Amino acid sequence: MSNSDIFIGEIIGTAVLILLGGGVVAAVVLKRSKAQNAGWLAITFGWGFAVLTAVYMTGALSGAHLNPAVTLGIAIKDNDWGTVPVYIAGQLLGAMIGAALVWIAYYGQFQAHLTDPEIVGDPADKAIEGPHDETTAKAGPVLGVFSTGPEIRNVWQNLATEILGTIVLVLAVLTQGLNDSGKGLGPLGGLMVALVVVSIGLSLGGPTGYAINPARDLGPRIVHALLPLPNKGGSDWSYAWIPVAGPLIGAAVAAGIYNIAFA
Amino acid sequence: MSNSDIFIGEIIGTAVLILLGGGVVAAVVLKRSKAQNAGWLAITFGWGFAVLTAVYMTGALSGAHLNPAVTLGIAIKDNDWGTVPVYIAGQLLGAMIGAALVWIAYYGQFQAHLTDPEIVGDPADKAIEGPHDETTAKAGPVLGVFSTGPEIRNVWQNLATEILGTIVLVLAVLTQGLNDSGKGLGPLGGLMVALVVVSIGLSLGGPTGYAINPARDLGPRIVHALLPLPNKGGSDWSYAWIPVAGPLIGAAVAAGIYNIAFA
Amino acid sequence: MSNSDIFIGEIIGTAVLILLGGGVVAAVVLKRSKAQNAGWLAITFGWGFAVLTAVYMTGALSGAHLNPAVTLGIAIKDNDWGTVPVYIAGQLLGAMIGAALVWIAYYGQFQAHLTDPEIVGDPADKAIEGPHDETTAKAGPVLGVFSTGPEIRNVWQNLATEILGTIVLVLAVLTQGLNDSGKGLGPLGGLMVALVVVSIGLSLGGPTGYAINPARDLGPRIVHALLPLPNKGGSDWSYAWIPVAGPLIGAAVAAGIYNIAFA
Amino acid sequence: MSNSDIFIGEIIGTAVLILLGGGVVAAVVLKRSKAQNAGWLAITFGWGFAVLTAVYMTGALSGAHLNPAVTLGIAIKDNDWGTVPVYIAGQLLGAMIGAALVWIAYYGQFQAHLTDPEIVGDPADKAIEGPHDETTAKAGPVLGVFSTGPEIRNVWQNLATEILGTIVLVLAVLTQGLNDSGKGLGPLGGLMVALVVVSIGLSLGGPTGYAINPARDLGPRIVHALLPLPNKGGSDWSYAWIPVAGPLIGAAVAAGIYNIAFA
Repeated sequence: MSNSDIFIGEIIGTAVLILLGGGVVAAVVLKRSKAQNAGWLAITFGWGFAVLTAVYMTGALSGAHLNPAVTLGIAIKDNDWGTVPVYIAGQLLGAMIGAALVWIAYYGQFQAHLTDPEIVGDPADKAIEGPHDETTAKAGPVLGVFSTGPEIRNVWQNLATEILGTIVLVLAVLTQGLNDSGKGLGPLGGLMVALVVVSIGLSLGGPTGYAINPARDLGPRIVHALLPLPNKGGSDWSYAWIPVAGPLIGAAVAAGIYNIAFA
Repeated sequence: MSNSDIFIGEIIGTAVLILLGGGVVAAVVLKRSKAQNAGWLAITFGWGFAVLTAVYMTGALSGAHLNPAVTLGIAIKDNDWGTVPVYIAGQLLGAMIGAALVWIAYYGQFQAHLTDPEIVGDPADKAIEGPHDETTAKAGPVLGVFSTGPEIRNVWQNLATEILGTIVLVLAVLTQGLNDSGKGLGPLGGLMVALVVVSIGLSLGGPTGYAINPARDLGPRIVHALLPLPNKGGSDWSYAWIPVAGPLIGAAVAAGIYNIAFA
Repeated sequence: MSNSDIFIGEIIGTAVLILLGGGVVAAVVLKRSKAQNAGWLAITFGWGFAVLTAVYMTGALSGAHLNPAVTLGIAIKDNDWGTVPVYIAGQLLGAMIGAALVWIAYYGQFQAHLTDPEIVGDPADKAIEGPHDETTAKAGPVLGVFSTGPEIRNVWQNLATEILGTIVLVLAVLTQGLNDSGKGLGPLGGLMVALVVVSIGLSLGGPTGYAINPARDLGPRIVHALLPLPNKGGSDWSYAWIPVAGPLIGAAVAAGIYNIAFA
Repeated sequence: MSNSDIFIGEIIGTAVLILLGGGVVAAVVLKRSKAQNAGWLAITFGWGFAVLTAVYMTGALSGAHLNPAVTLGIAIKDNDWGTVPVYIAGQLLGAMIGAALVWIAYYGQFQAHLTDPEIVGDPADKAIEGPHDETTAKAGPVLGVFSTGPEIRNVWQNLATEILGTIVLVLAVLTQGLNDSGKGLGPLGGLMVALVVVSIGLSLGGPTGYAINPARDLGPRIVHALLPLPNKGGSDWSYAWIPVAGPLIGAAVAAGIYNIAFA
């Protein structure tokens, strides 16, 4: 794969991933959406099938990492770092484009949700995300369309949960070659990884919302800070390092487990 | 593929698509249905598996486009327009047949829903489709069995959402050849496209109900206008051009992206 | 395949189909079940994955028809009737065994549901199946664990809905050979048929509960009549011919469509 | 496969299985989780995709039995007992590790759930698991994150339900070789077994919570007894033999059916 194919593939793939992944949260959380209150199953399947769609589309172009943690895990496993910066640059740029596209697709819903006087500050609006710690009260559902946030703020637990989720994801990606005879992410591989992501969401998403991908969290958080959304509140920057550091640590641990137990 | 195989395959495939796709909306929305209030997940999986069933059935006969946007995207990609009219004619005719079959399958439910004095005009009946703009108040759930409608009427946003959804769909179809070694829509390809459609529904269906297919929206809307349903209300013709134009624009954009980035 | 393999395979496969298919209805409908009120999605996925499990298990032994309508459709398509009686005998016997196993697996739930004085006659218990016609009021949720029943009693509509559902199922099975290079029901074929069954359930199950299989309905209805369940009510024999005749007519129509359009 | 590959593969695979399987119960049951009250579908898909993830990851390393009942069924079928102790030791150790990891991932949720004065002893907390027999009232939702328990205590029924569920599981695993040309658990095989597990959960999980795996139940129950959880209640040891004996009996019956009907 050429560097330009990797760069373009990761931009397109990660943009589609975030358009669909952020989109399902917007669909479930925002007022005046047909999918409002469709629940946690809708969110977890929506994110999983977002991975499926993006991997299916760009697997042949760039390998469809779509996640710096995946790129890091593969780089450690293969001890090959040459294309890492191209992958990560494409992923971060794609994630920002995807987040902006969610805003376009749900423009009216964002406006209605944030400017309707009956809605702003209504605690019931936050029900979909479960009970909130008082310290996160300002981070309402609109930030949740872009980035993750914890139900209970506890640095070591939040970090541990993100590390565990990412170990599962990256180990599944790394062991794929053993099952697929090294053919890379074909259609079936994409389906499998998508269902692994549904699994992580259902099982490990409860405490922090399962970023398990630094680009997925950081790129949209930057876009949230930049967009002219009324009453949008803060972008919760004090939490932003956890969904970056946790997945990168998890990827390194997964690559270590792979090299010890599977290689 | 001969023109007659294409024509017959698209009629059968699109009829099955709309029988099952319109059917799941009828099942969830109409009174006296066992599936009433089964929710948005049921609708999105129901439409996705409708695509799976129809593609699986007719893939070998006509290629199973079942959607003028898919036909247009493939025509632009290959610059081959010879069979486009046959495809689109079959799709539109099949969609009308499918919509009439939904009416037969749910005959009693339509009658009970529309003629029960307690039900007509009951705002709670519209809850499944989320809150409605006052300007769409006349378009109740029965039209929703046939055609799509927006939660918030905003021409540019509604068009943009349909364009974005169709870009995802058509780009997934066009890149399929890269993954499947050009073998066309085999069983696994049909499953993948079906799950992409579930994904689009979950993630981008909130604002407009994701037509992403001109035949899927226009054919059943014509049937809604023709059927002798009591108290059926208008067919919302002022909106009808958006789910036709949006998907066609989206298909052209997707083909452009494909030719630039993937070809 | 030998006649004894067919007979044994169809007994085992149909018993597993009904154990799992009847089981999910028991799980959702009966009191004192962890899955109570899990909803229509649970029922439709439960029946679909019941098909997947049974086909996966017995596909190599008997071809896994598991349904007289499938057997009839294949017999008409191939004009080969020699094994039809063996298939149907195995299916009916297997369905009766499966229904008896549901009773064993949910023994305490049946007892609690039918004998608890607070529960018997409580209209809320019927909510899961939607509103009932007064003429069916005696057919409560317990019969629904065994056999199907309509929400609105209308002979021609009930028959039409069963015919339409079965056309979709049998046409999907018959066209499978076109996609699978005639290799029969391999693992992927079983998955596809299972998702087609989920689709039929979601989209066409609302009016009658989608028998689409004479053995699936008649065998368990006989067992319902025989079992010593307290307060079980009648077995609704006046409706019993529709889920037998409808699927057989649908299978014949599907085979006709296949022979005209696909062969 | 070497004994050390089997041991390590089963530890990793069963740890991932229980991390994700116990995790989804924690996500749905515990307070302060984003997935709280996501329902029975979330739990059954969560467990099924936990199987998918663990099998996908470790299938090439150890064959991914992950369940003493599967190991027993294969040993009886092949009459080859040499690696049975290695498999079972790895499974039990992995299950204990997985249960401890669930505690880490949901640390704050366990603390909040068990120490909040409004929550302790609140009967509404048990609603997710359905109504409870008075004799099980002490076994609240927290034990349910680790181990299974019946809705109605009835030794022969509870045993019968676990036996039936395990027969379905093990027969599906044993007949897999017939479909997959003896290639073992490849990616598609893992998907199929995962959906079989979803099916068993939806259809036969209502009465006992479908252990169908002695290691899955016993390992986490030991961890529940050891962990320093406040107000955790008893570990329900009087029931603990049923989810061990039932699956082992079921596996033996399944192997017998296989050897008579399929071999």
